[in-house]
Amino acid sequence: MGVIDGRTWLELLSPQECGRLLAGERFGRLAYLLEGRPEILPVNFAFDGTAVLFRTDTGTKLEALETHPEVAFEIDAFDREHDTGWSVLIVGRAVEVPMSEAEASPAAAAVRPAALGDKQHWFRIVPERISGRRVVRGAGG
Amino acid sequence: MGVIDGRTWLELLSPQECGRLLAGERFGRLAYLLEGRPEILPVNFAFDGTAVLFRTDTGTKLEALETHPEVAFEIDAFDREHDTGWSVLIVGRAVEVPMSEAEASPAAAAVRPAALGDKQHWFRIVPERISGRRVVRGAGG
Repeated sequence: MGVIDGRTWLELLSPQECGRLLAGERFGRLAYLLEGRPEILPVNFAFDGTAVLFRTDTGTKLEALETHPEVAFEIDAFDREHDTGWSVLIVGRAVEVPMSEAEASPAAAAVRPAALGDKQHWFRIVPERISGRRVVRGAGG
Repeated sequence: MGVIDGRTWLELLSPQECGRLLAGERFGRLAYLLEGRPEILPVNFAFDGTAVLFRTDTGTKLEALETHPEVAFEIDAFDREHDTGWSVLIVGRAVEVPMSEAEASPAAAAVRPAALGDKQHWFRIVPERISGRRVVRGAGG
């Protein structure tokens, strides 16, 4: 168990735990700026131990990332019955990588976009900051 | 079944379907701007048929919303076994509402923040735009 914040009873997850959770998920949410306002879209992704790898089609999301590469990426899981759960947040820059380079990564095989389409543009998000938290309601009473 | 986008095989959900999905969920993700960059945090929420209602504590999220009320709010559910799922995105402004007004809403009773703490500030997001999509891989072959 990591550090528990005494004010909110959130357990702050270690970088190692965040990496383990990232490696175990396939769907995350990307927040990016479109005309100065945030948007959120779910993406199919893989975590190669260092960075988040996802792909996208030509379109507004691609244009937005080229203009404003600063993004946030989040994964979570919540149990609504027990009000417990966890989330991991990455803040970083989405940088396009050549398809040949992206597909040379073993992690790329796990990226099968749920939405069909060509999805010819690969991006990596190299984390500048990773944070994770787990709701430990049981610990708080 | 709604309109299917022939390029991506995404079914575009009607506003009524988006409203039904919003009414059935309790956890969503809020994207907001912090120092000009997007962040994502999970929030416990309720949808009263018109707007998303959530609450927060004093802190960086509150300060960020006061400075930049333009937010995005997202809910989703994905089945990783079958690569199917859906998501709903709201783009709007987060406006603080007095606690007495917020708690007069029947929907407010459903907002029990998973993280403990005082959470004395209530916000409403009145949607300027709602969009939803469902991945219909089966339809795409």
